[in-house]
Amino acid sequence: MAKQKTAIVPTREENYPEWYQQVVRAADLAENSDVRGCMVIKPWGYALWENMQAVLDAEFKRTGHKNAYFPLFIPKSFLEKEAEHVEGFAKECAVVTHHRLEDDGAGGLKPAGELEEPLIVRPTSETIIGAAFARWIESYRDLPLLINQWANVVRWELRTRLFLRTAEFLWQEGHTAHATAGEAQEETALIHDVYADFAEDVMAMPVMKGEKTAGERFPGAVQTFTIEAMMQDRKALQAGTSHFLGQNFAKAQDIMYLSDEGQREHCWTTSWGVSTRLIGGLIMTHADDDGLVIPPRLAPAHVVILPITFKAEDPDAVIAYCEQVAEDLRRQAYAGRPIVVELDKRDIRGGDKTWQWVKKGAPLRLEIGQRDIAEDSVFMARRDQSPKEKQGVKRELFINNVASTLQQIQDGLLEKARAFRAEHTRVVNAKDKFYKFFTPPGNGNAANDNADGAAPIHGGFALSHWNGDEAIADRVQMDLGVTIRCIPLEGELERCGFADAAGEGKCIFTGEPSKTRVVWAKAY
Amino acid sequence: MAKQKTAIVPTREENYPEWYQQVVRAADLAENSDVRGCMVIKPWGYALWENMQAVLDAEFKRTGHKNAYFPLFIPKSFLEKEAEHVEGFAKECAVVTHHRLEDDGAGGLKPAGELEEPLIVRPTSETIIGAAFARWIESYRDLPLLINQWANVVRWELRTRLFLRTAEFLWQEGHTAHATAGEAQEETALIHDVYADFAEDVMAMPVMKGEKTAGERFPGAVQTFTIEAMMQDRKALQAGTSHFLGQNFAKAQDIMYLSDEGQREHCWTTSWGVSTRLIGGLIMTHADDDGLVIPPRLAPAHVVILPITFKAEDPDAVIAYCEQVAEDLRRQAYAGRPIVVELDKRDIRGGDKTWQWVKKGAPLRLEIGQRDIAEDSVFMARRDQSPKEKQGVKRELFINNVASTLQQIQDGLLEKARAFRAEHTRVVNAKDKFYKFFTPPGNGNAANDNADGAAPIHGGFALSHWNGDEAIADRVQMDLGVTIRCIPLEGELERCGFADAAGEGKCIFTGEPSKTRVVWAKAY
Repeated sequence: MAKQKTAIVPTREENYPEWYQQVVRAADLAENSDVRGCMVIKPWGYALWENMQAVLDAEFKRTGHKNAYFPLFIPKSFLEKEAEHVEGFAKECAVVTHHRLEDDGAGGLKPAGELEEPLIVRPTSETIIGAAFARWIESYRDLPLLINQWANVVRWELRTRLFLRTAEFLWQEGHTAHATAGEAQEETALIHDVYADFAEDVMAMPVMKGEKTAGERFPGAVQTFTIEAMMQDRKALQAGTSHFLGQNFAKAQDIMYLSDEGQREHCWTTSWGVSTRLIGGLIMTHADDDGLVIPPRLAPAHVVILPITFKAEDPDAVIAYCEQVAEDLRRQAYAGRPIVVELDKRDIRGGDKTWQWVKKGAPLRLEIGQRDIAEDSVFMARRDQSPKEKQGVKRELFINNVASTLQQIQDGLLEKARAFRAEHTRVVNAKDKFYKFFTPPGNGNAANDNADGAAPIHGGFALSHWNGDEAIADRVQMDLGVTIRCIPLEGELERCGFADAAGEGKCIFTGEPSKTRVVWAKAY
Repeated sequence: MAKQKTAIVPTREENYPEWYQQVVRAADLAENSDVRGCMVIKPWGYALWENMQAVLDAEFKRTGHKNAYFPLFIPKSFLEKEAEHVEGFAKECAVVTHHRLEDDGAGGLKPAGELEEPLIVRPTSETIIGAAFARWIESYRDLPLLINQWANVVRWELRTRLFLRTAEFLWQEGHTAHATAGEAQEETALIHDVYADFAEDVMAMPVMKGEKTAGERFPGAVQTFTIEAMMQDRKALQAGTSHFLGQNFAKAQDIMYLSDEGQREHCWTTSWGVSTRLIGGLIMTHADDDGLVIPPRLAPAHVVILPITFKAEDPDAVIAYCEQVAEDLRRQAYAGRPIVVELDKRDIRGGDKTWQWVKKGAPLRLEIGQRDIAEDSVFMARRDQSPKEKQGVKRELFINNVASTLQQIQDGLLEKARAFRAEHTRVVNAKDKFYKFFTPPGNGNAANDNADGAAPIHGGFALSHWNGDEAIADRVQMDLGVTIRCIPLEGELERCGFADAAGEGKCIFTGEPSKTRVVWAKAY
């Protein structure tokens, strides 16, 4: 059988990491810049981020948060206040030491005007925002204080990959202060849910909600909650985190309030964030060997119209018809947004044009020529189907049904991703099977057959009991490069379709009792 | 007569710079941070910025621009490519020299991991975006390339003032590339108009559109166009600039395209920006001695409802009535936004609450108590009127008319600001009168009487002929601290109501012929 031609070379099967880079390039989402580790987010990629921002921002506001903006720079002494926190970020931060350039005597410029105290470009803003909270909060009447910031942050990563891990990235960081531990924990849970709902309903990316183990917590947090998604290479992506900080930062920074009984008390704080990394997750959840596939809720353009004027008797009539279709579509709405239509009149080869939009992942594509006009129809292709599956649809019918067609695509993408995760998730009850699951076939290792009745696979999510000993987790990481992604919240295994994994059991490494299975996987 | 009590102390008259700081504080817009020169933008201030962004962003998109995002850091060598440009920014830039912190042996941390090439925190992005343009543009088909970025930038200012001049600020920067000089100039003019319309229609801040003289141009630009507004201390504020960069940056960075005749040509580029400085302009245009006054188009809340439950027989009924009014108002819209209502149920003294909202500048304030319910009315105060002028209005009438009331306020603010500018602008035809105009009365200088029939004033905008000699402008700046704000565009003096200043004449310093008067003023 002849090899199927794909728009992206190599395919996922052939070389997954390279496939990812090629999708980012082919969809014109982003590129590496001249600054090591920093990316340029191109218009089509940035539009995805804007659409993510719009939905999340509305949700943050609906739940009582207000946006504000805090300095890019953090004095070194601030970072040093919380011991675990500085430990976590000192090794990878950009340090500003001078405030001007002057003639170096050799035709160039050198840094001058050394600062008394170096400034750190924020890797996250707990400390600088905490300092503001300490000023702002006087009494219980000022609580809860619910603040969010949309900003750029910098972490000097050595191995970077577009969207997934870059030295500079864009994110939102929420920071809140509360009078009681309980209220802060409720906030942490609220945002955890906001993130999970966003991932599933808007990104069509199924996630598991859980708590991080101590070894994987945010530096300085008491508890970190995460949403973990499975990518198409079966690795996990941590897609958003919500941290209960206890009184750690409040004590380090004197964030205090006067209670209604007149006592000075430390606040309880939280922080939480999602970043442009979500775009990497979107790509690796939905893209295929022909390029990006965008869930309609996030599409910068819902419908792309390609007029076929080549050889048409009356090219102007084709354009006019397309413009009318575009106009009619724009009067329709999907998920609270007017339908966004891109009418691509560029003078380039039709085939090139078609494939550009396939690779960019627009949900619906219309190719409209003379014959379609005669039939008062449009020739439609759905990005969630093969590029070759196209169908003529009556114009009016297409327009009237466009919102439901988009919702079908949205639902289908989520369903498909859920099926993929189900297919590559296994309940594993023995250490040897666990090791086998995470060892590629070959070199004496057969494909894994641990799951009752399921086809043998290797890699993915393993749901196994564990006794809570970090040393075991470290050992597994060393042996297999596999980590505990999360301890699923109560009811979460059932919600995700893994009811058979719920309940108590015994640690597969020690035989000790365990309250719940945890999720193990290789991860980004 | 007893001194009028004002919410802001000192008043504008008493100490204008201090009044400004107090308004920023009283309206809870922003504050200085722990990082020298960097501000914290608080929620009410940030909401103003968000509303500005929403209107501008829609306008940029409507005119064909797309958003993207470029690195925060600029390699030193990039900045050095355009000679005037680096000259303009080298003296005030934040320089990153290290990429981690390590133990300093004394219990603290010191910068470590020195970078091979220092990185500059972007003061503006012509060079880093130009490098991307050079990669992206191949042929004339790729032009025009119309890109905008919303970002933070850093200029190490020594004397800072909240919003007006800060080391870090937020802005948008547009960057475009074109095939011809003419197209680039059209773009520059288009954006110049977008800015002017935004200032007047949305901010209610009248501006004069003009070109900067060579001495006031953006470093590296061929032409800089500006909008200049008059603040209440009669100083000018440069509120937005649009630069025609010619081929300066294209040549420095090899931004080239293949023409349809197959020739490799340099592009023509533009850049343009407005920043959080606009918030400073908004304050100094509209705020009064009782605090901020927000034009309704930008108000984070159009209507504030204060329930008067103190001593009410049935406090719950008062709250319920207020909630119904709020709900009904939210179904109305003004200028494309649903009416935003803030129902302030906080348990604090009514008088304090009222004055907080006066100081924050919400356009409409409703105080609703038991008596108002009985009369099916609301007790209304407009922020553009004295805090003491309140009136009972039938509930339904208020709700149905809320959009037109807001537009009245919007129009009134613009009209008032125009009248203020007219009152403090003078056609000046002689050097001695010019010097007198800009010298405060006292020390032998009487208030200026140069204008025919107008009341004597000093300071403001002087419209005078000038021969184009920069040396004269330098001299005036040295003597009076006054600069040429702009050379008004053709027809602009007429549009701004200064038709008597239009036309040719003679330089007031040399008697040489001059084509148009220029605008002189002290400036921020």
